[in-house]
Amino acid sequence: MLTHTEALHAVLSAAIPGPVETRSMDLAAGAVLREDLLADRDQPPFDRATMDGIAFSRTAWEAGVRRLTIEGIQPAGAPALRLSEPAAGCFRIMTGAVLPAGCDGVLESEQVLFEETVAQIADTAVWQPHRNVHGQGSDKKAGHVLLAGGCVLTPQRLAIAISAGAASVCVSQPLRAMVVSTGNELVDLGEALAPYQIRPSNAYGLVAALRDYGCRAARKHVPDDLEAMRELFSASVTEVDLILVSGGVSKGLYDFVPRALEEAGVEKIFHRVAQKPGKPLWFGQHPQGATVFGLPGNPVSTLIGFREYVVPWLRRSLGLPDALTEWVTLNDLPASVAPLTGYFPVRKAPDMNHPCAVDLVAYQGSGHLAALAESDGYVVIDPEVVPNLTTAIPVPFRGWGAI
Amino acid sequence: MLTHTEALHAVLSAAIPGPVETRSMDLAAGAVLREDLLADRDQPPFDRATMDGIAFSRTAWEAGVRRLTIEGIQPAGAPALRLSEPAAGCFRIMTGAVLPAGCDGVLESEQVLFEETVAQIADTAVWQPHRNVHGQGSDKKAGHVLLAGGCVLTPQRLAIAISAGAASVCVSQPLRAMVVSTGNELVDLGEALAPYQIRPSNAYGLVAALRDYGCRAARKHVPDDLEAMRELFSASVTEVDLILVSGGVSKGLYDFVPRALEEAGVEKIFHRVAQKPGKPLWFGQHPQGATVFGLPGNPVSTLIGFREYVVPWLRRSLGLPDALTEWVTLNDLPASVAPLTGYFPVRKAPDMNHPCAVDLVAYQGSGHLAALAESDGYVVIDPEVVPNLTTAIPVPFRGWGAI
Repeated sequence: MLTHTEALHAVLSAAIPGPVETRSMDLAAGAVLREDLLADRDQPPFDRATMDGIAFSRTAWEAGVRRLTIEGIQPAGAPALRLSEPAAGCFRIMTGAVLPAGCDGVLESEQVLFEETVAQIADTAVWQPHRNVHGQGSDKKAGHVLLAGGCVLTPQRLAIAISAGAASVCVSQPLRAMVVSTGNELVDLGEALAPYQIRPSNAYGLVAALRDYGCRAARKHVPDDLEAMRELFSASVTEVDLILVSGGVSKGLYDFVPRALEEAGVEKIFHRVAQKPGKPLWFGQHPQGATVFGLPGNPVSTLIGFREYVVPWLRRSLGLPDALTEWVTLNDLPASVAPLTGYFPVRKAPDMNHPCAVDLVAYQGSGHLAALAESDGYVVIDPEVVPNLTTAIPVPFRGWGAI
Repeated sequence: MLTHTEALHAVLSAAIPGPVETRSMDLAAGAVLREDLLADRDQPPFDRATMDGIAFSRTAWEAGVRRLTIEGIQPAGAPALRLSEPAAGCFRIMTGAVLPAGCDGVLESEQVLFEETVAQIADTAVWQPHRNVHGQGSDKKAGHVLLAGGCVLTPQRLAIAISAGAASVCVSQPLRAMVVSTGNELVDLGEALAPYQIRPSNAYGLVAALRDYGCRAARKHVPDDLEAMRELFSASVTEVDLILVSGGVSKGLYDFVPRALEEAGVEKIFHRVAQKPGKPLWFGQHPQGATVFGLPGNPVSTLIGFREYVVPWLRRSLGLPDALTEWVTLNDLPASVAPLTGYFPVRKAPDMNHPCAVDLVAYQGSGHLAALAESDGYVVIDPEVVPNLTTAIPVPFRGWGAI
């Protein structure tokens, strides 16, 4: 049986960045950028005033001239004017405007008394060339990388792409996914329920989680029937990039999923991981088709299996770097820890003195879905750390939710 | 001039939870739940087997019987069978199945040798009543709150709602928002650009950020013209819930936004905050209409103003609790800090020994949009903390991105 680390390594080795597509900027938010975006011009593209005030020449300043004739106004969005009297003149200038030709810097309005046609500089004013000027190309030179490929186009990165004039960008294509719930005990929403039946909560949760990663995800259900499973898997394994199966992967008499997948041509990479919950995890790949995760059906096992193995696979497949490990400290320790990698749902409880503290949420095991309502994620506790585990020792944390 | 704390308080005081709507579960992912969801039945709804194995009676176990006649199979999704010979019989049982009538617990298959019609229990087997049984109602009793209103329906919370059979839920209505860029220097994507002109990156970024909060956001542009601004604001202020204006809020000759908003009936609540960047922030509300943020136009000021003031307003308006403050430690300190609340872009740099460490990113001021490409958010440094600021002292962190 693989350790959690070996299993994760096997999953990542099976992931390669998927295909790309060109998307217009109006539809690019949240997508994964797959090309380096270069600055189309210097940023800023001109010597830019960073304050409202007056622009003038060092000639006047160094000659001690403090009463300057206002030759005109330099607003933002207008071509650069040219100072005709460097020794005696100035322009009123607005934030964002081009520094006029013949001017060396800007003095902020707070230091200037404006008369009809004259700007009187305060005796106390301090100034030097380039003051209040955001120099052309000082942020980024034309042709240099503004945004490196392999990042999510969050709002601020989208703004950066827009600043370079990109009307469309190369991004990862949405992955095609199928979520399959198994189990005769499942009855969909809206249908009447017998006391021994339950709702397909895993499938709905997985579809929502996949959509957070931009996947096109369909939801299917099959009963505990080898024939029906083989048919569904055979029909879809070459139509989608990813199949997530919930349930039917353990050793019960009706756990047909591994056999049905293999009969549909999916090659097993591993089955079972030394972890709790989620030990029966099955992972495989079709030579010309989908990557398949057989997630244990207990609801907490399903969601942790998704976050722990499917998310890293998704990041690689979307062309994102692996996520940094987030570390937290436990305010309280688990009562009992099996000699397996253990996952424990937690709620963030930060304060200034314990900036990365979390509380364990009351949790009765992998069937206890309701325990996750107030959780922000879970911690990972490997058997090696258990002997020395204290509330002072940081442990890895995985948050629920998107990229 | 208000402090950052006073300004935030004024913004929050102006926010009230907005209207709700009923949405089917297929469309509810990511929405804000606005009702308490109760358990429709006990969870689990029956005494549920947590392992594959055999179910039998304490009578047989306590009498020392270790060879039991298999009376049948109890699969998941089938009605409970009844044990006819409590002293000598058992059922094979599958994970997720109902505990059959007359049985007190389950012994896992690993402890059982299965013959044709007999289950031989290992001499070393340990068992007691309720073993491997997830008791009816032990997670949640029928009628108790499963999911409290005022939370985002993340995938795991969606799964919890599904488990209670909710076919539709009461969620926050999408807020109607308008993003207005101002400035004669702005030229939209696809149009030719003069050297003194730039792209409307703020407006695109703000629209994307608002959509992360489920808002319906339209994008408009007005030139630096009082009349045009007054017209646009008057026409839309009663049509939307939120207006974000970028630029035109400072003291320049062409900064008409505050005047145009007030002439359109928007009552000013405050203008200017003792912070850097983003000092010229304007905030107001129309008595029968929109809440309006006038965000300074320097791109870093715009995005920080959004994250610092608009996001808390959005959370209140969507019916979410205020976010917990996240704390981080700085690996390096800012070179200079003005006597104002300072915001500095940072990149997360956690490791096991510095679990909440961040690095400052190279940053030249509020015009330096490109600096945000590699940032995960920014830290907040209030003037009071500056004298004692060290790399050991946690400071507040705000991440970019969604709820």
